[in-house]
Amino acid sequence: MAGTNSLEKKIIHETGPAIILIGAQLGENIGKAVRAMYNFGLTDLRLVSPRDGWPNPDAIPAAAGADIVLDKARVFDSTAEAIADLNYVYATTARRRDMIKTVVTPRKCASLMRKYSDEGQKVGLLFGPEKAGLLNDDVALSDAIVSVPLNPAFASLNLAQAVVLMAYEWFQTNTDQPEEYTPKLETTPAAAEDLQMLFDHMEHELTEAGYFRHDQRRSIMKRNLRNIFKRSELTQEEVSTLRGVIKALATGGGAGWQTEKAEKAKKRNKGVM
Amino acid sequence: MAGTNSLEKKIIHETGPAIILIGAQLGENIGKAVRAMYNFGLTDLRLVSPRDGWPNPDAIPAAAGADIVLDKARVFDSTAEAIADLNYVYATTARRRDMIKTVVTPRKCASLMRKYSDEGQKVGLLFGPEKAGLLNDDVALSDAIVSVPLNPAFASLNLAQAVVLMAYEWFQTNTDQPEEYTPKLETTPAAAEDLQMLFDHMEHELTEAGYFRHDQRRSIMKRNLRNIFKRSELTQEEVSTLRGVIKALATGGGAGWQTEKAEKAKKRNKGVM
Repeated sequence: MAGTNSLEKKIIHETGPAIILIGAQLGENIGKAVRAMYNFGLTDLRLVSPRDGWPNPDAIPAAAGADIVLDKARVFDSTAEAIADLNYVYATTARRRDMIKTVVTPRKCASLMRKYSDEGQKVGLLFGPEKAGLLNDDVALSDAIVSVPLNPAFASLNLAQAVVLMAYEWFQTNTDQPEEYTPKLETTPAAAEDLQMLFDHMEHELTEAGYFRHDQRRSIMKRNLRNIFKRSELTQEEVSTLRGVIKALATGGGAGWQTEKAEKAKKRNKGVM
Repeated sequence: MAGTNSLEKKIIHETGPAIILIGAQLGENIGKAVRAMYNFGLTDLRLVSPRDGWPNPDAIPAAAGADIVLDKARVFDSTAEAIADLNYVYATTARRRDMIKTVVTPRKCASLMRKYSDEGQKVGLLFGPEKAGLLNDDVALSDAIVSVPLNPAFASLNLAQAVVLMAYEWFQTNTDQPEEYTPKLETTPAAAEDLQMLFDHMEHELTEAGYFRHDQRRSIMKRNLRNIFKRSELTQEEVSTLRGVIKALATGGGAGWQTEKAEKAKKRNKGVM
C-alpha cells in the first residue's frame, strides 16, 4: 500500500506511547517495528539490550525511510531504566502468566493509553524478544498485560506484527477518517429528469428489441430495472455513459457474444461482470 | 509473542475472507502474510501471478509453520479468476483513486465481511504488489475500497502489515476475549477480617515506630493507607506476604537504605518501585 505524501512531513502523534523493545534479536525486526511505528505516527523507540547492539545497519532498509524514529531511538541497559519516566506501562504477551494482573485487549489498551495521554501522563508498551517473549520480571513492571486475541492453534505473533497492531489501535483512537464514505470527485449527481430520460430511452429501445414479451409483467420488469440504476446513485456523467451504451447496443449489437467462446468467458468471469 | 498451544490445532475460521495477493514480489512477504493470516485463523490464500512463481521456498521460513495455509494456496492468472466464486470483494489501498466507490475503514470492512459471511456469502480482500499497490483495474473489480487510517507523512504500509491488520480486525468481530479481566488463579480473595488484621498489625507497628507523629492527622493517614491496600483487591496469600513484610521491617529494618548508594538506586528506579 503506497501513498506517502511528502508534502505532509510532520509528526502527528508526539504524545503517543513509547515502544520499548526488550532484547530484540534481529536488526531487521527492529527496522520493521520502526516502520510500523511511524506508519501510525509513533516516534519514541526505546531499546533495552538489543542483541546485536545499536545502531544496527540491518534495521535501516527495513525501516523504509522512517529515519526520524531510527535517529531518536534510545538504548537502555534495563527495563526499569527504559520506563523510568513513564506513568503507565503495558506488557504485550500471548502467554498466560501466573500473575494477578489485569489483562486487556489491544483496543482497550489503546483507549486507556489515549485517556492517560490526554491527561498528560506518559505511556509505553513493552515487547519481549522474538522467540521467548517478555520475562515475568518485565511483565511485573507493567500496569497491565495486553493480550491480542489470536488463533489458539497458532498464537505466535511476529514482533513487528505485534507492534503494528498496537500502533494501529492507538491511531484509531484519534483519527477523523469516517468509517464509510463515498468520494464524489468532480461530478454532479444526476437529477430526476436525467434519470427519467435514461429510463425512457432504455425502455424505448427494449420495447423495440422485443424485450418486454410478457405484457402482464412489463411494469414489474421496468420497476426492477429502474431500481437497479437508482441504487447506483448515478452522476450526470454516468447517465450520459449509460445512454451511449444503450445507443451502441441498440444499433450495433449482434450475436457475437453468443458464440461458444464468449459463453466460456462468461462462465469464467461469473460474478465479476 | 509466543504462546501456541499445540493441543488446540484446529482451524477456527473456515468461513473467513479469502486473502488475494496480486503480483506479490517477494516470497518472504508472502510467507509473512501467511503467518499473519493463520494467526487470525484465515486459511484461504489466493495468489495472482506471483512474480517469482509458486511454490516459492522463500515463503516457508517466513510462514513460521502455518503450513496449512501454504499447502492450500492457489495460483491464478488473473484477478477475475481468483475472485470468481466470491460475493463481496474489498480492495485495500492507501492511495486515493479517482473512482466513485465507497471507502471503508478496516473495522467497518470487517463488520461488513462478518455480516455477509454469516449470511453464507463468500468474501475476499485484494492486496496489490509491494511497491505499487493495486491497479485501478483491480480496484474496479471490488465492491468497496478499504483504507487504513495512517500517518499522512508515512503512509506506505508493508504488505504483511496490511494483511495482519485486516486479519486482526476480522478476528475481532468474533472473539470471546473480554476487553478487560483479571485472572484470579488458585487464590482466595482476602476476607474483611484478614484485611482488618493486616491493618491492625501495620498500624500497631507504625505507632511503635513513631510514624503517627501528628496526632490530629492520624485518622486521615490510617484511612489513606487502608485505601491503598483496599484498591489492590488482595488475596489471602498476599495478606500473609504483607504481614511478613511488616514484621521483617519492624524487627530488622535499619538505616541501610539511606546510604548514598541506595539513594542513587532509588533515583534510577523512580517510577518502578
